[in-house]
Amino acid sequence: MEETDHLSDERKKAEFDVDDMKIIWAGSRHAFDVSNRISRLVAKDPVFEKSNRAVMRRKELFKNTLRKTAHAWKMINELRLSDEEALKLKFFMDQPGFLDLHWGMFVPAIEGQGTEEQQQKWLSLANTMQIIGCYAQTELSHGSNVQGLETTATFDSQKDQFIIHSPTQTSSKWWPGGLGKVSTHAVVYARLITNGKDHGVHGFIVQLRSLDDHSPLPGITVGDIGTKFGNGAYNSMDNGFLMFDQFRIPRDQMLMRLSKVTKEGKYVASDVPRQLVYGTMVFVRQSIVSSASNALSRAVSIATRYSAVRRQFGSHNGGIETQVIDYKTQQHRLFPLLASAYAFRFVGEWLKWLYTDVTQRLEASDFATLPEAHAYGIEECRKLCGGHGYLWCSGLPELFAVYVPACTYEGDNVVLQLQVARFLMKTVSQLGSGKAPTGTTSYMGKTQHLLQCRSSVRKAEDWLNPGMVLEAFEARALRMVVSCAKSLSKFENQEQGFSELSANLVEAAIAHCQLIVVSKFITKIEGETKGKGVKKQLKNLCYIYALHLLHKHLGDFLSTNSVTPEQASLANHQLRSLYSQLRPNAVALVDAFDYTDHYLGSVLGRYDGNVYPKLFEEALKDPLNDSVVPDGYREYIRPLIKQHIRSARL
Amino acid sequence: MEETDHLSDERKKAEFDVDDMKIIWAGSRHAFDVSNRISRLVAKDPVFEKSNRAVMRRKELFKNTLRKTAHAWKMINELRLSDEEALKLKFFMDQPGFLDLHWGMFVPAIEGQGTEEQQQKWLSLANTMQIIGCYAQTELSHGSNVQGLETTATFDSQKDQFIIHSPTQTSSKWWPGGLGKVSTHAVVYARLITNGKDHGVHGFIVQLRSLDDHSPLPGITVGDIGTKFGNGAYNSMDNGFLMFDQFRIPRDQMLMRLSKVTKEGKYVASDVPRQLVYGTMVFVRQSIVSSASNALSRAVSIATRYSAVRRQFGSHNGGIETQVIDYKTQQHRLFPLLASAYAFRFVGEWLKWLYTDVTQRLEASDFATLPEAHAYGIEECRKLCGGHGYLWCSGLPELFAVYVPACTYEGDNVVLQLQVARFLMKTVSQLGSGKAPTGTTSYMGKTQHLLQCRSSVRKAEDWLNPGMVLEAFEARALRMVVSCAKSLSKFENQEQGFSELSANLVEAAIAHCQLIVVSKFITKIEGETKGKGVKKQLKNLCYIYALHLLHKHLGDFLSTNSVTPEQASLANHQLRSLYSQLRPNAVALVDAFDYTDHYLGSVLGRYDGNVYPKLFEEALKDPLNDSVVPDGYREYIRPLIKQHIRSARL
Repeated sequence: MEETDHLSDERKKAEFDVDDMKIIWAGSRHAFDVSNRISRLVAKDPVFEKSNRAVMRRKELFKNTLRKTAHAWKMINELRLSDEEALKLKFFMDQPGFLDLHWGMFVPAIEGQGTEEQQQKWLSLANTMQIIGCYAQTELSHGSNVQGLETTATFDSQKDQFIIHSPTQTSSKWWPGGLGKVSTHAVVYARLITNGKDHGVHGFIVQLRSLDDHSPLPGITVGDIGTKFGNGAYNSMDNGFLMFDQFRIPRDQMLMRLSKVTKEGKYVASDVPRQLVYGTMVFVRQSIVSSASNALSRAVSIATRYSAVRRQFGSHNGGIETQVIDYKTQQHRLFPLLASAYAFRFVGEWLKWLYTDVTQRLEASDFATLPEAHAYGIEECRKLCGGHGYLWCSGLPELFAVYVPACTYEGDNVVLQLQVARFLMKTVSQLGSGKAPTGTTSYMGKTQHLLQCRSSVRKAEDWLNPGMVLEAFEARALRMVVSCAKSLSKFENQEQGFSELSANLVEAAIAHCQLIVVSKFITKIEGETKGKGVKKQLKNLCYIYALHLLHKHLGDFLSTNSVTPEQASLANHQLRSLYSQLRPNAVALVDAFDYTDHYLGSVLGRYDGNVYPKLFEEALKDPLNDSVVPDGYREYIRPLIKQHIRSARL
Repeated sequence: MEETDHLSDERKKAEFDVDDMKIIWAGSRHAFDVSNRISRLVAKDPVFEKSNRAVMRRKELFKNTLRKTAHAWKMINELRLSDEEALKLKFFMDQPGFLDLHWGMFVPAIEGQGTEEQQQKWLSLANTMQIIGCYAQTELSHGSNVQGLETTATFDSQKDQFIIHSPTQTSSKWWPGGLGKVSTHAVVYARLITNGKDHGVHGFIVQLRSLDDHSPLPGITVGDIGTKFGNGAYNSMDNGFLMFDQFRIPRDQMLMRLSKVTKEGKYVASDVPRQLVYGTMVFVRQSIVSSASNALSRAVSIATRYSAVRRQFGSHNGGIETQVIDYKTQQHRLFPLLASAYAFRFVGEWLKWLYTDVTQRLEASDFATLPEAHAYGIEECRKLCGGHGYLWCSGLPELFAVYVPACTYEGDNVVLQLQVARFLMKTVSQLGSGKAPTGTTSYMGKTQHLLQCRSSVRKAEDWLNPGMVLEAFEARALRMVVSCAKSLSKFENQEQGFSELSANLVEAAIAHCQLIVVSKFITKIEGETKGKGVKKQLKNLCYIYALHLLHKHLGDFLSTNSVTPEQASLANHQLRSLYSQLRPNAVALVDAFDYTDHYLGSVLGRYDGNVYPKLFEEALKDPLNDSVVPDGYREYIRPLIKQHIRSARL
């Protein structure tokens, strides 16, 4: 039986072919087919139910995640899912759990840093899940600074073993997902010490728990680090702590692709290029970018649909109120986020391609700014839903809670932004050398032009000219970078200058990163796209994305003279017109993400827009509604009402 | 036994008298004494323990809140606390619960809108808590737009009663705190209908539950709306839904101060000025401002102390790492928030004074922008704590979850910002009339000057001149307001213009609001302040506050020509120097808030800085650590490891 579609009027308004846009969003028809099929497979399986996560206690939630994981693994085997299908299953399951770390960090660490022999041995165990691994790097008081780790691995040549040890409480491993209660093994990072010499941090494969009864091995203390942000959310994960008391492992469990220790305790570095072994890091950064795009697109789906359902004000004489999505203020906040979701989807695609090219891998850190922008976007979407966005069943609180750690994992993003800034300073300093900049910095090859050019925008429509938009972003980024380089050159001590100017350097790095996103979006709209009206929509989204950034960072553009106040005002004018053009297509543009109601997990974002009756249904499920008179009435409410005292007011 | 103070070196660095600053923060010596005494009374009482909130189920958490409330009420009576002391007790208890609504909305609504007779009857019951009340205004699909409410109160002259009725599911009351499980009574807003005529929305006192057994009265359907954002947080509150099925109340339970219905069903408006009855709204807005300042100051305390404890990078040869608070990037993000906490404290003081003046009450909406700025600040503080800020025991997740609804209650803030904008447009339009603007808009009296003036800042130190700072903010606000007014005048239809330009109008309103905060801070530093070095610190904070706003909204200042790019660059230069001056005083400046560890509720923000051992203690309390081998191992982990299959990878 079909339910009424409360959003059907919205869907009829669309001026483009949604099915074609779905394929563009997915990346290819094949990718769309897989996602579509697997997401529906997950949605209809009762084991993957997730609407009850908020009311579960930590232990229940954790056990429920173990159940889902075991079930997923069973499905993968029974249905003989391909790697691609299995990844999608994990994705649509939408529950953080130990598998993320086993497949996402443990296995890639061995692939990247293990010798062929080590890979053969350990990957065969890991790929069949005979062992479950995690990635034990960060310590209680050591996050971003890997070189500051305190855990030691001291070589004992007599027994041909390493002694892994936690010398202090602060050296306890802290945070690794899957460590607290599940993992049987870990890749542990520790300072390698041979013959009294400290060779810095290296990776070791360490067994933590018995494969018979799961109890921690002697010398290992391990547990969960406690409750985290949000109901549900990452509380399904056993992020753990781990301490070693003189724990011994065989010499061949040091990951030796990059450097090794001989039987005699001699430290030998290999000639494998370091870039090749950054597999784990690269994997993580790529995941951060794709999860940024996913999380934002989910939040935007919810906020867009609910903005079309919700009505406020605007009625006269008791008539029907105005749809919230018709307010300019709502459009001004929502539509740039919708455009960002598309922008980051396309950057993500390009990044995937970039990662296949080893020499360009390090540019990954250009995207340090993504997580912040997206956490902001999710919270903004929550607010765009009004008060109901604060209900757990809106899906937005959990989305935020699951997503925000992206702003701090891999260390503080500022650290990454400063890395980008260093790279930009280096590129600028080499400009005179005749070596043309390539990749994301190739625009710096036009330095002379970009330092002098004046934007030729004369009327609002000029802001729909890709060349003019791009030039404004290039001029702004380049001038900020050059200005930093000049200020830096006035310091005698480069490091001190870098520290003193770090806030400016971060801003220059952000400008550079935004330019790249804009330029990749422009590349996308200049390429071939199939489907009725699709290209027109992508163009609108692209210019909304670029012009809202121009507005948001107007200070940068004006202070570098990249645009004039009049040109900025024309851009705002154009932006308002683009919002009006986007409006009738808004709901269809989020339909193109093809998310199931199960995956969205939001009463407000339901495909059919049937929000209000379902909010009631959800409310009635809360355990607090098990009884009409609440537990505690006899003890704490009745005596209060019945005591008949006169007293001070509270 | 005294524990070691890990932050004692930081405290020694302070260049001012912290005890004197504590009094300035509190507002007076008396206010400090009360806060100090009551906060310690709460902290040492085991009933008020709150570190276990995250692991409680909803029902437990709710019952625990009832217990705390009953205990607080007992203390108030037994210790004969004054109103002021009782309010502080509630504040330091730090647990949202039904008392907030009873005292904060139910009682003020009767005070503001009830006749003297009604006040006599109902306040005597409410003040002794023989009845518990809440405030039932918003409905499932009606928030900000009070005039759109659907619930009806139809007068039946035969029985001299009103019939309260919910005609649709969407007219169900939804959100009122204390309604779901506790309140015996409510002030209910409904459309008054007499003799078939709709007189718009009015308030009625309605009994909901039996005073004998607490069961809902016939015709009343009531319950809890379900889980909200965060672990703990507002889940201790029974926000509720409420539907009426032809429910009858006596005529004299309509709140009749403003207008009444006679026995014959005649509707009579009184001549009481409407402003006098806005008590409830005013109370709520004032609370929003003070809770904004409180929440931000708590978050800043935590982030500042932990930034002094935490070390990252900067060591050479394994030496001690650099305190995170010494990094310029950290200072650039943290110190403006510290300055904001002070700025809003002083604005809050001024607002309290403003509320005593009825004619100025409506300016309250000028502060519509506060909640957003603060929610951002709390989240930024969480990120400034690195990964550990994501742990519940850091206190920051709950602070955020408790605080964010301030961004959406009272309706979307944009609605309030647009009210401010309307007021500003009206003020500008009257400028020619010879009526000098007063209050917060008095700067508009200098319109001619402010439209033409050029900032006379020539060197970085000029940005420490209060007149020059103020003029830049005045020029920016005025020029944005005037520019909006000009654009507006080009529209034939004013309402359409207002809608089209709403994004610009919101920005002008924000500029106006920021000017007020800056000007109130400047007033504070120009007044008398007692205590060694105190004034110097307040000055630094004031200029940090102003100059970081200038930097953040540079686009506004440049596009209105209120400053030049060169002057903006001098402001940044001055800002960096102010950060260095603030640095040695940072920890002492948050000590001045005088928050107990109980109130802060944060392992990272502990007064003694003994963070790491305490993180371990907290972790070990998590129920997931009750057993070493987790529940679910036999069912879901062991079979996985033991199944020995070869399969696709996930």
